[in-house]
Amino acid sequence: MENEIMNSCKELKLRETAKFLKKHDNYIILTHCSPDGDTLGAGYALFYGLKEIGKIAAVICADVIPGKYGYFVHETDDVPMENATVVAVDVASKSLLGDLEEQFGDIVDLCIDHHISNQKFAKNLYLDAKASATCEIIYELLEEMDVNINTNAANAMYTGIATDTGCFKYSNVTAKTHIIASKLFEFDIMPAEINKIMFDTKSRRLLELERMVLDTAEYHFDNRCILLSVTEDMQIKTGCSGSELESIAVISRSVEGVICGISIKQTDSDTFKVSLRTYPPLDASEICKELGGGGHTAAAGATVKGTLDEVKARIIAVVKKKMEEIDAGISSSK
Amino acid sequence: MENEIMNSCKELKLRETAKFLKKHDNYIILTHCSPDGDTLGAGYALFYGLKEIGKIAAVICADVIPGKYGYFVHETDDVPMENATVVAVDVASKSLLGDLEEQFGDIVDLCIDHHISNQKFAKNLYLDAKASATCEIIYELLEEMDVNINTNAANAMYTGIATDTGCFKYSNVTAKTHIIASKLFEFDIMPAEINKIMFDTKSRRLLELERMVLDTAEYHFDNRCILLSVTEDMQIKTGCSGSELESIAVISRSVEGVICGISIKQTDSDTFKVSLRTYPPLDASEICKELGGGGHTAAAGATVKGTLDEVKARIIAVVKKKMEEIDAGISSSK
Repeated sequence: MENEIMNSCKELKLRETAKFLKKHDNYIILTHCSPDGDTLGAGYALFYGLKEIGKIAAVICADVIPGKYGYFVHETDDVPMENATVVAVDVASKSLLGDLEEQFGDIVDLCIDHHISNQKFAKNLYLDAKASATCEIIYELLEEMDVNINTNAANAMYTGIATDTGCFKYSNVTAKTHIIASKLFEFDIMPAEINKIMFDTKSRRLLELERMVLDTAEYHFDNRCILLSVTEDMQIKTGCSGSELESIAVISRSVEGVICGISIKQTDSDTFKVSLRTYPPLDASEICKELGGGGHTAAAGATVKGTLDEVKARIIAVVKKKMEEIDAGISSSK
Repeated sequence: MENEIMNSCKELKLRETAKFLKKHDNYIILTHCSPDGDTLGAGYALFYGLKEIGKIAAVICADVIPGKYGYFVHETDDVPMENATVVAVDVASKSLLGDLEEQFGDIVDLCIDHHISNQKFAKNLYLDAKASATCEIIYELLEEMDVNINTNAANAMYTGIATDTGCFKYSNVTAKTHIIASKLFEFDIMPAEINKIMFDTKSRRLLELERMVLDTAEYHFDNRCILLSVTEDMQIKTGCSGSELESIAVISRSVEGVICGISIKQTDSDTFKVSLRTYPPLDASEICKELGGGGHTAAAGATVKGTLDEVKARIIAVVKKKMEEIDAGISSSK
């Protein structure tokens, strides 16, 4: 069944995708769950583009859209399910639709994505794995469709590109990324304000949490590994939770000389979420697999049960093995 | 005397500047003291460009060049003072030459700069205040000169543009900034590695200093102002100094709701360097002017004498006046 669906996915070119979008109407645009700047930017930019050519369109997300995207997230249309054309943006697999999977997972007409890992669950797919962000693709599509780009659409696309590239910082940035950014400047966007919101705004409580977490810093293996802990107590005292805690992993990966940044976040009295950030030759996903988790080469995670000390000891034991392999000249990554 | 020199400064256009650079030889290229990515990037990119057309050139800086720029900072030529053509890059005033001021302050043949506040101390000046970085100007000059750009020059220019814009994050970025960045990608640069070094690497001692500094956080004016202090003692204990301390100003500007981030760094028993980071309608340069310093609208500085408490009180008094003007509806910026 899974195979059958995979085989029935037709891969489109840019021009065909643009044609598809011009031909249909009554769009339901799906973003992935736990929405980020790229899926929202892509969804809303496509919405604004389709509106410019007189189409009816709605943007739907399984989860609440964070208020910080309010400068481009506005009300969309009501689109009845009958005769709707369903488009998923930046959605690599059905399961990433979250609570929308049941209703929409098997009836996505077109998926527009930049994840090489795309599961090809849609009837039609336009995949450009070289694009830094799905918003890069949406820009090219709107241009190909010869659709007017309004300021909302431009702010949305800038947001997606900026957030998926760490503001043009990461290795996924290409010359094309910068060219598209330069073109978006023509549409009266507010890049500095967007970047301030996305990258340079830290709540006072998060600053307080970071102060506490820095007190927990432990260094291992000749300072090549740092371990930071966020206890339940710290979260209660500061009021920090959820995605706010991601900044701790960012700290762990930024320490000079560190190739293994570990952050441990207590989620229950005896449960800890481990986030790993590594640099070659270490492979975060390999380490997390041994802890029952998984992820990417440079960023992975796992959930580990025990007391804080037990959890730390378990992780350090796995990392120790890998460090010893490195020191013995056996690289753990390809 | 100061006026006389100012009057004798000739402002050049891009084409004239390119001509000037092609016509002369035996270049001594001066960067500003406490060198940053832009002055070094501009100096070395110009050096590599001039070498491509067979010129002799040296890059000189009053202070030690931090090792992190080693991927584009290489040995330059020995250039005797006789018949040398002296070019200053990214140097807004003579005093910014640091220890080189005495020898070179009055004999700069050409200054290439993007600071609107340039003091016009050189015999010739090419100023483009709309450029995000002096490296943006150097790119245009090398293009105008039709000079081959090698990978060293391209990495140098990318570094200057990235560091002066917070990696394309700040309001000084224009469409042209992104276009130039996209063109630099053609020259086999290593943007992700550069950005990791410039933005995502923190020494363990700096992490320790940040922990200490966060303990000093004071909030004023309904949390619209944060004040962070770095004492001499903290610098000695952690071993942090110089440009490393700039990260404290970055923290001060990133706190949610803060429009006035103040960081105070002790440089002597009774001397403090104040760094101000503001958001509209506050104007950092206006506030620092009242403290005897100066700078830009969003970032300015001053040196203030007294005990830490006296210095804090003086700054807060000036900020208070501005905050009261804002609250009374009188905006301090245009």
